[in-house]
Amino acid sequence: MRPEEPAGDEVTRLAERHLVQPWPVSGSIGAEARGRIESGEGIYVTDAAGRKLIDGPAGMWCVNAGHRNKELADVMASQAMELSYNSPWYTTNTPSAVLSARLAEHAPDGVDHVFYTTGGSSAVETALRFMQFANNVKGRPEKKLIVSRQGGYHGSTYLSASLNGRPRDHDWMDSASDLVVKLSCPNPFRRPEGMSVEAFCDFLVEEFRQVIEERGADRLGAFIAEPIMASGGVIVPPPGYLKRMHALCRANDILFIADEVVTAFGRLGHVFASKDVFDIEPDMITFAKGVTSGYFPLGGVMIAGRLFEELRRSNHSEAMFAHGLTYSSHPVGCAVALKNLDILEGGLLEHTRAVSDHFQRGLKALEDLPLVGEVRGLGLMACVECVADRASNNPLTLDLEVGKRIDKHCQELGLLVRPLINMCVMSPPLTISLAQIDDMTAILRRGIELTMDDLVREGLWRG
Amino acid sequence: MRPEEPAGDEVTRLAERHLVQPWPVSGSIGAEARGRIESGEGIYVTDAAGRKLIDGPAGMWCVNAGHRNKELADVMASQAMELSYNSPWYTTNTPSAVLSARLAEHAPDGVDHVFYTTGGSSAVETALRFMQFANNVKGRPEKKLIVSRQGGYHGSTYLSASLNGRPRDHDWMDSASDLVVKLSCPNPFRRPEGMSVEAFCDFLVEEFRQVIEERGADRLGAFIAEPIMASGGVIVPPPGYLKRMHALCRANDILFIADEVVTAFGRLGHVFASKDVFDIEPDMITFAKGVTSGYFPLGGVMIAGRLFEELRRSNHSEAMFAHGLTYSSHPVGCAVALKNLDILEGGLLEHTRAVSDHFQRGLKALEDLPLVGEVRGLGLMACVECVADRASNNPLTLDLEVGKRIDKHCQELGLLVRPLINMCVMSPPLTISLAQIDDMTAILRRGIELTMDDLVREGLWRG
Repeated sequence: MRPEEPAGDEVTRLAERHLVQPWPVSGSIGAEARGRIESGEGIYVTDAAGRKLIDGPAGMWCVNAGHRNKELADVMASQAMELSYNSPWYTTNTPSAVLSARLAEHAPDGVDHVFYTTGGSSAVETALRFMQFANNVKGRPEKKLIVSRQGGYHGSTYLSASLNGRPRDHDWMDSASDLVVKLSCPNPFRRPEGMSVEAFCDFLVEEFRQVIEERGADRLGAFIAEPIMASGGVIVPPPGYLKRMHALCRANDILFIADEVVTAFGRLGHVFASKDVFDIEPDMITFAKGVTSGYFPLGGVMIAGRLFEELRRSNHSEAMFAHGLTYSSHPVGCAVALKNLDILEGGLLEHTRAVSDHFQRGLKALEDLPLVGEVRGLGLMACVECVADRASNNPLTLDLEVGKRIDKHCQELGLLVRPLINMCVMSPPLTISLAQIDDMTAILRRGIELTMDDLVREGLWRG
Repeated sequence: MRPEEPAGDEVTRLAERHLVQPWPVSGSIGAEARGRIESGEGIYVTDAAGRKLIDGPAGMWCVNAGHRNKELADVMASQAMELSYNSPWYTTNTPSAVLSARLAEHAPDGVDHVFYTTGGSSAVETALRFMQFANNVKGRPEKKLIVSRQGGYHGSTYLSASLNGRPRDHDWMDSASDLVVKLSCPNPFRRPEGMSVEAFCDFLVEEFRQVIEERGADRLGAFIAEPIMASGGVIVPPPGYLKRMHALCRANDILFIADEVVTAFGRLGHVFASKDVFDIEPDMITFAKGVTSGYFPLGGVMIAGRLFEELRRSNHSEAMFAHGLTYSSHPVGCAVALKNLDILEGGLLEHTRAVSDHFQRGLKALEDLPLVGEVRGLGLMACVECVADRASNNPLTLDLEVGKRIDKHCQELGLLVRPLINMCVMSPPLTISLAQIDDMTAILRRGIELTMDDLVREGLWRG
């Protein structure tokens, strides 16, 4: 910023008057400001009050290599001085070509092509519009219904948001609901009472099988799933679920789209998690966030080469996939992603795999607190879910906003939490050390304890 | 790039095998590479063969401040070292707040709020989803049809692409056609034979009036228009057209969305063109591209504050506008945009206004070539439209690809053209000097002359 630029509270007033941020509510839309973050370093951010906070959610599941990484900052400037932009409509650039080849090395065999976008929503749009296009070209325009799941999150454009399965995503928003079929959320913690996890998995797979039978495989174009539902509350599906869903897709010529916007680029210790963690080979993999550690808006979709081969063999050689963004294959974004991949391959993936157990065990221990119903997760993503009554696993009612209460205490103690109704989601920068994990866990524990005290004192919870 | 990275033709082979670029056709999808650009400087780019080319389209209407701008490159690195990312869901940052206030100063009075996205498509999605949301909250969920125009271009997501009015955008793609009503293209060059431009304008306005009457104002939510249609072929509408369309919107409570993704940030000599060039005050203005001179994917929508006031007064204070992107309000993107705005305000806007006449006159003189049907434009954007027969203004048939032929010759001579079927679109970096304009025009003239020779020799055109 220039020295004469506004600073301090003046900035907050400008935000109140002029800036609209995501997910506002009518009552304050266009007249609110959120807490200001001034700087970042490693796993920490510093807020406007000068408090140094552990960045518990790594921004928005994205600052995987940590804040203030000089290599990532420098590569932006150096690539911008080499080539800051070229039109992907009629030219190409070196970073995007090289990055594509390196990503193909990490993806499952045959999933070897990349179409770049500017984030997760546009990556999902690309995958779905490609499915629609391909089925038009292949002469089966009815085969386009998209199967998604309750609790899932896939984006914030009209089409991608239509796949979302959280009620609040739709209350006041329009969606293309006639293009989508939704299956149950594969959340073992919320499975029907008395049902084993194995039986729950059978139920989920059977539900999909029935949808295929009822709707007809010739009407279903794609199944889209986050391998672990992220903003739905870090839902780790029952063992075998993804493989069985994938088998149903294969058997019925339904494209399996793994939405790895959160799980890719190290969050689970691998560049892509589909094959390396869950042993599935999707037809498409959407990614974003961690691909640049959030330094630059880049996303994309890995696409199996055989899908293109089918089109090249079709009788419609002039059929145009009329899709693409000004910033597709951005040279600076791809250069940042290449450097970020160097960092991941150069030890950060290994580090993540090495510290994940400690991270999960530390958080799991919070289950001894009576407000905590379950702690679940994998790799460096976890969710602490609070409940009013552990016997029945009832969540606290929404108006308690227990996540926000915990976050407030934790911020006083040095930790930024991502509160999600009755849940706290933890997904710190992958650079976090064992000692920093202990700090994070200790602060979260204290934050929950203070929240429990508040709830009891206010008569909102019986303890 | 690291020294051991692939280079030269090896890069092209990687692109062929792994990279999918915008708007591919079935016949070559997944197995093609486009011409490689290695570097840029000022108004020039250098291709893989070492040829230095004037960047005629400024990338994709976006490299307004020119290539290799050190201030823009440096601010990316310095902001990334300060704060590379913060989640806009629960925090804010200084660059986005300050940028919002500065953009509000340039926008029409009262259009004083900004919602940031990652480009034009997501900006249009935001404007439309906000219209849908607002009308849901206001208890008039039927008032949501979107009026767009033949020839227009608004993006490449399912919803934004549904507004597009170029035939090739839809041939093989699905769209939300039931949400959209399309009006005629306001292209004076293609007006009905024997009709004056004034009568053509009356016809266009009357057409909109009739659509309002037939569909009902209570079903029409928004009208969206590029003040000058860009990729439709630099269509400058008849004088008074935009003001009269705007008046119809106001009279019928239809939101007027000016899609200024191309026309803003200096292309027409002003930060926003709606008020300063066309004397209209839209309810929303979408922008992208030039806001960062293409260095960083940033877009957004300016929204009139009164639209938020209406919602704050509603009875649904908890109604959530469930919309937003991971990269909304990105601190690095907003810092780049601030620096870019410094550059525009610091002389580049003035320079653009000073050289625009020379640019337009130089290109207009190409009308003496018999292949050229019309040269049209405003500011630093223009289109040279070729026709087979000037008497009837018939365009050359598509398979001639005359734009591509001209581009090929021009590239040999040192100019990159954006070929668009039978048109060449010129929109160079705003930093172009008078002498460079003369170079550009001379090369384009020679490229067209050589193309005319080819066409005559091949018997495709009678000259």
